[in-house]
Amino acid sequence: MRVVVLGAGLVGGAIARDLASGGEFEVTVVDTSQAALARLADQPGVVAMRADLTVAAEVRRALEHQDLVVGAVPGHMGLATLRKVLDCRKPVVDISFFPEDPFELDSLAREAGVPALVDFGIAPGCSNLIFGRMQAEFDTVERFVCLVGGLPSVPTWPWEYKAAFSPADVLEEYTRPARYVAGGRMVTMPALSEAEFVDFPGVGTLEAFNTDGLRTLLSTAKVPFMQEKTLRYPGHIERIRVLRESGFLGTEPVEAGNVKVRPLDLTSRLLFPLWQLAEGEEDLTVMRVSIEGMHGGRRIRRTFQLLDRFDPATRTSSMARTTGYTCTAGVRLLAGGMFHRTGIVPPEFVGREQACYDFVIAELGRRGVVFAERTEVLE
Amino acid sequence: MRVVVLGAGLVGGAIARDLASGGEFEVTVVDTSQAALARLADQPGVVAMRADLTVAAEVRRALEHQDLVVGAVPGHMGLATLRKVLDCRKPVVDISFFPEDPFELDSLAREAGVPALVDFGIAPGCSNLIFGRMQAEFDTVERFVCLVGGLPSVPTWPWEYKAAFSPADVLEEYTRPARYVAGGRMVTMPALSEAEFVDFPGVGTLEAFNTDGLRTLLSTAKVPFMQEKTLRYPGHIERIRVLRESGFLGTEPVEAGNVKVRPLDLTSRLLFPLWQLAEGEEDLTVMRVSIEGMHGGRRIRRTFQLLDRFDPATRTSSMARTTGYTCTAGVRLLAGGMFHRTGIVPPEFVGREQACYDFVIAELGRRGVVFAERTEVLE
Repeated sequence: MRVVVLGAGLVGGAIARDLASGGEFEVTVVDTSQAALARLADQPGVVAMRADLTVAAEVRRALEHQDLVVGAVPGHMGLATLRKVLDCRKPVVDISFFPEDPFELDSLAREAGVPALVDFGIAPGCSNLIFGRMQAEFDTVERFVCLVGGLPSVPTWPWEYKAAFSPADVLEEYTRPARYVAGGRMVTMPALSEAEFVDFPGVGTLEAFNTDGLRTLLSTAKVPFMQEKTLRYPGHIERIRVLRESGFLGTEPVEAGNVKVRPLDLTSRLLFPLWQLAEGEEDLTVMRVSIEGMHGGRRIRRTFQLLDRFDPATRTSSMARTTGYTCTAGVRLLAGGMFHRTGIVPPEFVGREQACYDFVIAELGRRGVVFAERTEVLE
Repeated sequence: MRVVVLGAGLVGGAIARDLASGGEFEVTVVDTSQAALARLADQPGVVAMRADLTVAAEVRRALEHQDLVVGAVPGHMGLATLRKVLDCRKPVVDISFFPEDPFELDSLAREAGVPALVDFGIAPGCSNLIFGRMQAEFDTVERFVCLVGGLPSVPTWPWEYKAAFSPADVLEEYTRPARYVAGGRMVTMPALSEAEFVDFPGVGTLEAFNTDGLRTLLSTAKVPFMQEKTLRYPGHIERIRVLRESGFLGTEPVEAGNVKVRPLDLTSRLLFPLWQLAEGEEDLTVMRVSIEGMHGGRRIRRTFQLLDRFDPATRTSSMARTTGYTCTAGVRLLAGGMFHRTGIVPPEFVGREQACYDFVIAELGRRGVVFAERTEVLE
């Protein structure tokens, strides 16, 4: 079977390597950057192809003779790329995490008669998958909370943060108002709000704060309380707040010296080099999903906790592992004919099907991405 | 007697009002800003005069028929203005706190046959005055430490700081390497270094850190240990350090958006409005000078502690009170013929003379600026 991976970034590369290593796929990786493709040059079973994915004809050329597509392009070009893929009527697993509503493309995918698994990473991704499974198992779900963060293993002052993905997206996450659900109604809070300390075994105390990460769950799930928070080492978010309060994240140009400059442009320019994970620098992913509700007549809480680390053997970042291996499990789900539904498919839809859920969790487990589960009865 | 005050800023205005209120002086205030002069319009006994003090002929015009001069211009034009005053052979008390070495003008002042009291504020100023007095009283001075800060009475997040004087000078103080004396030798440390918490009755815990504030004492005093530290509410300096570490205080232009901008220019632009004391906003001045050494055969420590607050009756800021009233005491010292030495005179020279010291301290005390004194015998 032939799979084409669109995007040869950190995560796209890990996806291509994982797909090729199983032996069941012929893998092609497409990117506009020769440098990104070159990093996969020594990978057996992976063919590199240079193409400009913003051009429909180039996407068509890249998808010719392919059976399955992985979308791993930067978020800002995600929706347009997915549309082009669906125009070619190919099944696709997407992890570009574009900001727009994926259901815009639902009828297009249905007409094409193919599934488009979207947001199929770690969070969004596994968090939704777990939600879908719990929704199927519980009588009623009353509360869903997802805490998640990608962090450097060794925090260094002053930011104690490195991004395995684009730092521009991080600053965007720090400014976009955060939506969550309380009392069955949507609540919109400022970004970075409601910070609290949470302890994680093996990592210590982290700080959780509101980010706008519920995504498809805001429309697909009816639950009285749903919240997603991002995790950072304590103090990081206070420093960001100081920047925000002082205007350093502003997007209106201000006069400085004899030029007009958007403060956010300068802030991005200064912080990005400081936030870049160095080659081989170890990261970790920490996540805790907890679901409360009625189950067999009792109120219970089920908790799924993950602590994943950089893999020194393959020099694969934890962010690439957790996001990429969820994605490759999705690819194998489709390749194996286990999931049949067409249209836009967020992970919560996949999680509802026990066999699909078990398959993804098992695939992750085989690669060392393991959720510790716990069930508590609440009085 | 006729006194002219050059500069009608916050401190210059307080000086003019104090001099006029005693009845013994005819006071003229000179400034280039009509708005600054207007604030003194309703002040009995004060004549406002508009002039550009960067022009020698204008200074000459302003000083004609004057007996005594006060220099209260911004630091960056301080030295040039003082030179013009000395060219007119007038005795002067200066609080412009210019960065250059005032002794550059020593021979000019001597040739003019007039005293030029420089740095005659609170710190530098009273701190040096006290040092001079202690140097005269002690057998040997071994250690001199001055902790000083001007703060808003009510700290507000995130900066917990307001400047009664130019915020540009504050950022300059935060970047210039700090010199102090240890083991009899000059030590140069980064600005903001060696932060420590210090408790002050009535204010609470403050944070002290190195700033380059010893000024004339570096050349006039021979003491094994001399240090000046600035006081802020705890946390302020950490936030400044985060800015510095991330490049926000950089002076090399960087590309941001499509313009090149000096990060410090943008940072100044964003912080200055946040750091401005609002009209009537209450500030305080806190200072602790401690001197250790041999005195009558015993090792002792003498401590002089000040906590001064905004005066709601006259709406005079504490910074203007402490700096301005030290300056007006200096003016009255010269007017009363109590100090005879010509040339550049830093306050430590004045403090050596008991009568002069007592006079300045008494003048300050009469205005509520009171040092609490304590003597301890060490071991």
